Amino acid sequence: MAINSRMASAAHIMCFIAYIGGEGTNSEAIARSLKTNPVVVRKILKSLQNEGLVVMRQGRNGGVSLSRVPEEITLGDIYRAVEGEGGVFALREAVNLRCVVARCMGDSLTAVFRSVDDAVQQTFQQTTLATLLRAVR
Amino acid sequence: MAINSRMASAAHIMCFIAYIGGEGTNSEAIARSLKTNPVVVRKILKSLQNEGLVVMRQGRNGGVSLSRVPEEITLGDIYRAVEGEGGVFALREAVNLRCVVARCMGDSLTAVFRSVDDAVQQTFQQTTLATLLRAVR
Repeated sequence: MAINSRMASAAHIMCFIAYIGGEGTNSEAIARSLKTNPVVVRKILKSLQNEGLVVMRQGRNGGVSLSRVPEEITLGDIYRAVEGEGGVFALREAVNLRCVVARCMGDSLTAVFRSVDDAVQQTFQQTTLATLLRAVR
Repeated sequence: MAINSRMASAAHIMCFIAYIGGEGTNSEAIARSLKTNPVVVRKILKSLQNEGLVVMRQGRNGGVSLSRVPEEITLGDIYRAVEGEGGVFALREAVNLRCVVARCMGDSLTAVFRSVDDAVQQTFQQTTLATLLRAVR
């Protein structure tokens, strides 16, 4: 499966901000921790901002802070921010609608995949950013 | 998220074999239903065979059959066949190990991602191929 590490990056970013604090925490500093490009970090920060999880300050003293305490932010919130409505599994883009099996797969699999997405969301919801933060030492 | 449709394809293939039956069911016929290339189908069939879910017959009367009845095959079995040990979410390939946050992310996220994978597996396990098949009409 084409697994991706965007969720890992987003959780890392949030934990970094929580640990270092809002002062001087900007996309360059975060990018050094992730060993990636600040552009990648800014893109993820934008998603986190859209979900109301971080506050970004522009200008000379610009930077990024958490919008609430780590106890009130779950990995479920972070997952929603970066993965949006997409879900984990996708239907095939096209199937042969003249085939009776193909015609019925969409509805059946949509229902199953929705249950899977709910399970993923619920599992992420059980871990707070505060829990991740406690493991940093 | 770079979602993929391999699970959807594999479930579709299994349902096709279950519906049409073993006689004359080969990768070309399946590919027409999926609107894809027989090579793609054969690759997935190979994974399903490795997990013991299908039996492939070579030669002139070659084809593919289920190895057991649809009531005894779950989407969890199919998921294991096509997604293997990979899991849904990946860690970042490299992080800055001089950063205390980065150093701790791997272990913390591995544990969370494992719980998520268990939840995905358990949810798929609740649906049998027989259930999918009943929706085909």
